[in-house]
Amino acid sequence: MGSGPSNPDPRVLHAMAQDLLGQFDPAFTVIMEETQAELRRLFQTRNRGTFPVSGTSRAGMEAAVVSLVEPGEVVLAVENGRFGRLFEEIARRAGAEVAVLRAPWGTPVDPVDVERALARRRAAVVTLVHGETSTGTLNPVAEIAAVAHRHDALVVVDAVSTLGGARLDVDGWDVDVCVAGCQKCLGCPSGLAPVTYSDGVARRMAKRGTLIRSNYLDLTQLERYWSPERLNHHTAPTTMVYGLREALRLVADEGLETRIRRHEAAGQAMAAGLRALGFLPFGPPPGPLKMPMLTPVLVPEGVDDLKGRARLLDEQGIEIMGAFGGLAGQVWRVGTMGYNARRAPVLRTLTALAAVLGPLPGGASIGEALLEADRYWETLAAAS
Amino acid sequence: MGSGPSNPDPRVLHAMAQDLLGQFDPAFTVIMEETQAELRRLFQTRNRGTFPVSGTSRAGMEAAVVSLVEPGEVVLAVENGRFGRLFEEIARRAGAEVAVLRAPWGTPVDPVDVERALARRRAAVVTLVHGETSTGTLNPVAEIAAVAHRHDALVVVDAVSTLGGARLDVDGWDVDVCVAGCQKCLGCPSGLAPVTYSDGVARRMAKRGTLIRSNYLDLTQLERYWSPERLNHHTAPTTMVYGLREALRLVADEGLETRIRRHEAAGQAMAAGLRALGFLPFGPPPGPLKMPMLTPVLVPEGVDDLKGRARLLDEQGIEIMGAFGGLAGQVWRVGTMGYNARRAPVLRTLTALAAVLGPLPGGASIGEALLEADRYWETLAAAS
Repeated sequence: MGSGPSNPDPRVLHAMAQDLLGQFDPAFTVIMEETQAELRRLFQTRNRGTFPVSGTSRAGMEAAVVSLVEPGEVVLAVENGRFGRLFEEIARRAGAEVAVLRAPWGTPVDPVDVERALARRRAAVVTLVHGETSTGTLNPVAEIAAVAHRHDALVVVDAVSTLGGARLDVDGWDVDVCVAGCQKCLGCPSGLAPVTYSDGVARRMAKRGTLIRSNYLDLTQLERYWSPERLNHHTAPTTMVYGLREALRLVADEGLETRIRRHEAAGQAMAAGLRALGFLPFGPPPGPLKMPMLTPVLVPEGVDDLKGRARLLDEQGIEIMGAFGGLAGQVWRVGTMGYNARRAPVLRTLTALAAVLGPLPGGASIGEALLEADRYWETLAAAS
Repeated sequence: MGSGPSNPDPRVLHAMAQDLLGQFDPAFTVIMEETQAELRRLFQTRNRGTFPVSGTSRAGMEAAVVSLVEPGEVVLAVENGRFGRLFEEIARRAGAEVAVLRAPWGTPVDPVDVERALARRRAAVVTLVHGETSTGTLNPVAEIAAVAHRHDALVVVDAVSTLGGARLDVDGWDVDVCVAGCQKCLGCPSGLAPVTYSDGVARRMAKRGTLIRSNYLDLTQLERYWSPERLNHHTAPTTMVYGLREALRLVADEGLETRIRRHEAAGQAMAAGLRALGFLPFGPPPGPLKMPMLTPVLVPEGVDDLKGRARLLDEQGIEIMGAFGGLAGQVWRVGTMGYNARRAPVLRTLTALAAVLGPLPGGASIGEALLEADRYWETLAAAS
C-alpha cells in the first residue's frame, strides 16, 4: 500500500505462470500486437513507436533519454521531486549538458518558470514527471509541453505512476515521448516499461549523427523487434509480456474512465479515512494537481518513521512508504494503485494503522474513520 | 527445443505466480540473499559482487562492459560467432576503442591467436563467449583468461548458455567478470542476468575517472542494493527474482554435478538420435570444446530452412532454431537445456522431425533412432 509496486490482480499472476512461447512464435507475435494496441489506447496515442522496454520503469526513462539525446545537447530537467532528479542523473550520464529547473517539492511546476528557463538557455529536450510519487504532485504536462514546443524543445514525460490510473493523453497533450511502468496503477509486477514516442521523435532518432550509447536500450532497434520486421534483438522476457497483456486486458474490460474514477474514489477514501484518524495531509490540496493514487501524510507527532512502518509491516503485513531527501522521516506515502484501489485494501490499511498507532490527537474512532472512507465508493457507484 | 529460452520447470512458473513482496521487505531480502548464495555456488566463486541484473542476458553483458570500460580504453573482442560479435557492438557503443579477433564460426578460439592479438595491441579488457550458441562451440576460457592476465587485461565472459548446464569455474579459471542468463540451462524465463565479478574489478569500477554512462546498468549502484546497504535504486522485478530463486533451488536439489551429466546425456542422446535419422552434424566434434546443451546439424538436402521449421512449429508445436550470418539457411540448432534436457522432450523432438520431414537419405527408422537416443540415459544412470 505504498507508492508501488502494488499487489497485482491474481489473474495477472496466473497469466505469468503459463509456459513459454518463443519470441518469434506467431502465437506470441499476436500477443505482442495486442499489447501494443492496448498500450496505444491507454496512452491515448496513434504513435507507431509504442511498446514495452525490457526492464523496469527506470530502463524506459534511460532508453528514452539515451536514444533521443546526443552527447553535448542541452536537456532541461524539470525537478520538483525525486523522480525529476533521476532524469537529471540519467541525462548527465548520457552525455547531455544538463540545465536544471528546481521547484519546491510538493508544489506543481509552474509553466511560466519553464518558459523563463528555456528563454535563458535553449534546450533540445525537456524532461518532466507527470505524477511525482515522491510528493503526490501532478505536474501540468500539457501546458509545459506547449511551452517546450514554443522553444523548439521536445518533451519526455515520466508517467510511471499515472498510466492506467489518471487522465493521460499523449496525443492530445502533444507529448513527444512518454514512459510508464507496469507496477503501479496497471497492477502488473515490475519488469517492463511501456514507452511511446511520436513519428517525429522516431525520425530524429533515426538520423542522429552519433551512435546510440546503449545496445540494450536502443529504441530504434527495439522498435524493429516490435514491428512486422521482428528484428532479432534480446531474448524477450515473454513471461512479463504475458503479465502486461493480461493487465491491459483487465483495463479494457473495466473501461479506462471507470478505472480512473475508481482510482479517484480510492484516493479520496484513503485521504478521508486518514484525516479522520487524525493524520495531517502533505502536498497539493485535492484537485487537478494532486495525484489521486497516492496520499502523502505527515508522520504523526511522536511516531518514529522507521519504527512505525516496521511495526505496520511486521504486525499487520502492510507496507507503506517513507519519503526521500528533505522529507525523509517527515512524510508517509500511502498508495491506492491498481488492484489495491478497492474498498478492502483501504479499510484494511486504515484499521492496521489504527491498531499499530493507537488514537492520534484529534482523531475520530476507527469505526468513524472507516465509515468516512467507505462513503467515497458510493460516490463512485452513483457516478457510473 | 532451440537455443533458448527453454521451457521452465512448472515449479519455477508456480513460484512466479506468488503475490508481491516489497523490495525492502525483510522477507524479500532473505530471498535476495538466498539467490546470491546459490548463484555463487553455481558460478563457483566467492565474489561479493554476485547478483542478477534486472534485464535479459544482453543487459548483463552491457552492464559489465559499460561499468568496467572507460571511453577510449581498448577492448579486444574475441569473436567466433554471433554473440562474440555482440560484445564488439556493445563495447563500441560504450565508447571503447575496439580491436577484434575474428576466428572461424564453428571452431573454438585458439589461445595462441589471443596472445598474438594482445602482443600486437595492448587491451584493457578481453571479451569472450564461453558457449557460443550460434555454432555450439565451447571456448577454452581458462586458457584465454591466463593469456589475458599475462598481458594485464581483464576478461569478461558470456556464460549465458552454459551456467547450470556445463562446467564453469569462475574462481578456478580466474575469470574477472562473468555474465549469465536464466532462460537457458537454469530453466527460468528470460528477464534477469546473473553477473559476478572479482573484488579487483569492483575496486577498478569504484575508482574510474569517468561517470558510468548508464544509471540503470551501473554495477556499482546495483551492488549497493544487493548488499546490506540496500541502496534504493530501481523497483526490483521481484517476480523474476522468485523465479530465479526457485530455479536455483532446483539446481541445488538436483546437485550441480548430476545436472551437468544430465545435460551431457541429453545432448548426446539428441545428437545420436539426429544422426540416426540421417542428419549431418555441424560444429566441433564431441569433446571438451563442444557445447553439450546445443546440437547443431546441417539442414537436410532439399529441405527449406524456414518452411521446415514453420511446419515443425505448426504441426508439432516444437520450435528449433535456424542460424545467423553465413550459416543462415544452412544450419539448424537443437537445444536440450534445463527442463528440456530430459528423455521425453528429446524423444518427442526426434519423432516430430521424423513426422514432418519423412525419411532422410541414409537415415534409420524413427524407432531405431529413438532407441539409439534413449541409450544415453542409461549411461547417465550408470554414472550417478
